[in-house]
Amino acid sequence: MISITIIGTGNLAEHLAFAFSKAKGIRLNQVIGRNRKRLDVFSKFTSISSDYDALLDSDIYILAIKDGAIHEVAKKISYLNGLVVHTAGAMNMEVLGPNKNIGVFYPLQTFTNGQEVDFTTIPICIEANSEESLGLLLKLGTTLSTKVQVIPSKKRKILHATAVFVNNFPNYLYAIAKEICDDNQLEFNLLNSLISETANKVNFLTPNEAQTGPARRGDQKTMHEHLNLLKEEKHREIYILLSNAIKATNGEKL
Amino acid sequence: MISITIIGTGNLAEHLAFAFSKAKGIRLNQVIGRNRKRLDVFSKFTSISSDYDALLDSDIYILAIKDGAIHEVAKKISYLNGLVVHTAGAMNMEVLGPNKNIGVFYPLQTFTNGQEVDFTTIPICIEANSEESLGLLLKLGTTLSTKVQVIPSKKRKILHATAVFVNNFPNYLYAIAKEICDDNQLEFNLLNSLISETANKVNFLTPNEAQTGPARRGDQKTMHEHLNLLKEEKHREIYILLSNAIKATNGEKL
Repeated sequence: MISITIIGTGNLAEHLAFAFSKAKGIRLNQVIGRNRKRLDVFSKFTSISSDYDALLDSDIYILAIKDGAIHEVAKKISYLNGLVVHTAGAMNMEVLGPNKNIGVFYPLQTFTNGQEVDFTTIPICIEANSEESLGLLLKLGTTLSTKVQVIPSKKRKILHATAVFVNNFPNYLYAIAKEICDDNQLEFNLLNSLISETANKVNFLTPNEAQTGPARRGDQKTMHEHLNLLKEEKHREIYILLSNAIKATNGEKL
Repeated sequence: MISITIIGTGNLAEHLAFAFSKAKGIRLNQVIGRNRKRLDVFSKFTSISSDYDALLDSDIYILAIKDGAIHEVAKKISYLNGLVVHTAGAMNMEVLGPNKNIGVFYPLQTFTNGQEVDFTTIPICIEANSEESLGLLLKLGTTLSTKVQVIPSKKRKILHATAVFVNNFPNYLYAIAKEICDDNQLEFNLLNSLISETANKVNFLTPNEAQTGPARRGDQKTMHEHLNLLKEEKHREIYILLSNAIKATNGEKL
């Protein structure tokens, strides 16, 4: 049995609390947080406290808090014997500094408030400053996911950057499409099945193999027509940059 | 019973032939095409011919061919009484010119060779030059999909442009992520569940509500770190343009 404490009351903290409260071999000891109202949400899973001096002993303390708060909170709990881990993609493990046993437990997924996720297929990137701690994190991770991987900080940061390319940026392109639909009295949800199938293709084709469209086939006529239809300068700029980049890949392997 | 002929032997032609051969109330009369080898694929569904003079009578002739070939083929079959439709997102209905009964039957989806698709949820945009033909296309569309919509050429072209934003461009961003993963000995498929969930979010959040990441929260430190990790000038350029565009949307509603 691995006992854990979750520090933080945000979106990820809630998803982890929910998943760990159902996981076999895990005891969720406590959730700690400053936001009283959010903290109450967690009372259905375990005991809650907003007092760092009231911390119960656990094997692992999981910091699911903002990047900028990690170092400060880690200092506050530096007296603990348990393993202290953060859940951030872009932060070094060493930011947990003063603690003896430190590590990272980074689930590579986007979490939505109130939307249950299946952790089974979510890659969890782990790292620790000792073999023993790494073993413990591996055990913890496999209670949720079949895709636990040891990934050092440098590589995790690169993964985090790629996550921006496959999550933040595509989502922003969806936002542009919605804006264009709204401006033209078209229902954005007409695009839902295309969005879904585009994402689905990575499961059986490389993105380079899956690439289609006017830029890929060098169809200048259609690209010019699209540019004529785009009213916003910002949309045109993005259309041109990405189309030119796609055109440049024609024939060459990515 | 609606009888149809498919002209063309590409990816879309094959998906349509497969779907219509199973659809209730549809008789797939014939498939016409010049590519003999490809044409053979269709012999399992119906009779095939590469001779435009051997066309059988059908209620509807569906041109599933390259944009640039539509006008020429339409002229070749202008003597037909049946309804002639094309399946292109970016072409006017009028390109079918000389034919008396013309229309458009545009399934808004990306089709992959050999990968079966479920037409039920695919929007099919229809248009015709008479009420009677429109009714016939509506009947045809609903044998495959629950989302048949009458969309005039102008709006269909706008939809086609938005499809570039939600399909071609996100797929290219996946390609960049794969390139970065490959360069750093990281498995690209670590990103699969993130890609899938990002697309899934459009079903319950607007893209603006779903937007997260360093650009959205104005996290300059992480953005600078990402830029330092990106080796290719092209990747940096795209990162900067899209991040700045996302930053500009902070606080304002898209």
